[in-house]
Amino acid sequence: MTTNPEFVRSAEVAEPLASWNEGAVRRRILEFVARVTDEAGGAFVPPAGRVAIFDNDGTLWCEKPAYTQAYFVIDRLRRIGEGSPALRDQPPYKAARENDLAYFGALEVPELLELVLHAHAGMTPEEFCEDVRTFLGSAVHPRFKVPFTRLTYQPMVELLDYLRAHGFRVFIMTGGGVEFVRAVSEELYGVSPECVAGSAVSYEVQERAGRPVLVREAVLQGPIGEGPAKLLNIQAHIGRRPLLAAGNSTGDTEMLAFAQDGARPYLSLVVHHDDAEREYAYEGAAASFATTRSLTAIAHERGWTVVSMKDDFKTVFGAAVE
Amino acid sequence: MTTNPEFVRSAEVAEPLASWNEGAVRRRILEFVARVTDEAGGAFVPPAGRVAIFDNDGTLWCEKPAYTQAYFVIDRLRRIGEGSPALRDQPPYKAARENDLAYFGALEVPELLELVLHAHAGMTPEEFCEDVRTFLGSAVHPRFKVPFTRLTYQPMVELLDYLRAHGFRVFIMTGGGVEFVRAVSEELYGVSPECVAGSAVSYEVQERAGRPVLVREAVLQGPIGEGPAKLLNIQAHIGRRPLLAAGNSTGDTEMLAFAQDGARPYLSLVVHHDDAEREYAYEGAAASFATTRSLTAIAHERGWTVVSMKDDFKTVFGAAVE
Repeated sequence: MTTNPEFVRSAEVAEPLASWNEGAVRRRILEFVARVTDEAGGAFVPPAGRVAIFDNDGTLWCEKPAYTQAYFVIDRLRRIGEGSPALRDQPPYKAARENDLAYFGALEVPELLELVLHAHAGMTPEEFCEDVRTFLGSAVHPRFKVPFTRLTYQPMVELLDYLRAHGFRVFIMTGGGVEFVRAVSEELYGVSPECVAGSAVSYEVQERAGRPVLVREAVLQGPIGEGPAKLLNIQAHIGRRPLLAAGNSTGDTEMLAFAQDGARPYLSLVVHHDDAEREYAYEGAAASFATTRSLTAIAHERGWTVVSMKDDFKTVFGAAVE
Repeated sequence: MTTNPEFVRSAEVAEPLASWNEGAVRRRILEFVARVTDEAGGAFVPPAGRVAIFDNDGTLWCEKPAYTQAYFVIDRLRRIGEGSPALRDQPPYKAARENDLAYFGALEVPELLELVLHAHAGMTPEEFCEDVRTFLGSAVHPRFKVPFTRLTYQPMVELLDYLRAHGFRVFIMTGGGVEFVRAVSEELYGVSPECVAGSAVSYEVQERAGRPVLVREAVLQGPIGEGPAKLLNIQAHIGRRPLLAAGNSTGDTEMLAFAQDGARPYLSLVVHHDDAEREYAYEGAAASFATTRSLTAIAHERGWTVVSMKDDFKTVFGAAVE
């Protein structure tokens, strides 16, 4: 703790959210945080209530042309196929070996889920985590030619830091596998594993060498963590309503609406992918959700804040991608 | 995970574990923490791995003559009965009104559970939390004549502080209702709600005034958080194996065994209730578990550390109870 006024001042003037362009969105974020942290103001929220929740894929890091976890599962299927003459030439393993993304893209969600769940069944949490880290330590994004872990959105990572510096607790509510994100959440986002919730598999308690171990089963525990299930995850893991929520797909609609309790200020941010040049241009839609409306249309109707990646992000990936 | 400076400060300046008597147990705790935090030593564990988990009832606060949550539910049944002429004289409501603990004590676990689940069904998390705080703000322990919230074990609360001051993250894995404990975990233990897991009810997502709300259902989500279910809660909420575990009943056996991974040091603490004078004397047995062995017998066999409340606690409740 320093009492040097010079130091305090320089820390205060250091420009917050430096990778965000000047404009209405950046201003709205700064004003929101100023309001809820101003003890003298009428909208003050004590630190215990400053809960911020973020979707992961497409909100904190790139999710195109496919979820990073999809590449991870395909890589695992390839390794399973290579180790088993019986499986090697069966369709999914063959497609994995030949990097045939179109094969997997044509599958229905339940078929995909079946593959995902079986790919890592039988592993302990430690083995699974090791597998994630090994994959992410070497795999490279097909377009940007850098590790997937370098494709976090720099302005969003700055936002996490900025919120924490103002007494917020930051959580990740992913629709993807909770343990996949936990394996790198501290490294990528400064978010500890216990602050990540998402789709979860069931575990079996087994005994090995006289000690209990947990083993992944090939079944989901509860629903996929999208839509209303995100609210159930918020209750199960955080136990209170968020003050700020950020998402990018229709599977985040309920979560974004949940921040608004009607009594205090809130901020719901929709990351809009409108930058085909620096990233991708698409309307985020959760694969498991049939919907006819885009999230940005819903956002405009409800008065949520739409973040244009094209206009509001000074840089998307920072120095990681030139 | 607390950032409350009060907790850190008290742990830093005062003698560590001041409410513990000198002796083998206190020494073992101090030595264990010294070993795993010594960067130069061979048993160093980085902060991310310093996970400490605690049972609540009987480990952090008094659970006799009945769980505090039982008094809470009985109080709620009394209020429901008083508000309903149709229910008023039916057995559970009548027993609640007449404070007939023997009636509830004679019920089987499933019958009790049914009452517990129905008592607060239909409430939002905020309403439930408010109900817990209102109850705990006025209810008084039948023997000690002080609020239940003053019956935390001072040596154990000091241990939580001491661990946090040494880079541990402290979690509560209760067999009781997760939201019951979360309502007071920050106040009593400096543990934020997201660091508490336990038995959980299902929620229904409803829409009120155009916004999503969560409503408690009268069904459990998953098993009661005892025994092997504590391991599933550890995985779901923390995602890694604890380095230190503390419990007091047979329902904590698996959790205590889980701290031992075979490769690094661990500390499993069993709080032994052997002090009828200052607290109670009994062997902690989870109500939902039929077992023929006592936890202290298991602890001696496995080399876990048995904490004698009589010998190791200089004070049990501190100045709260004279």
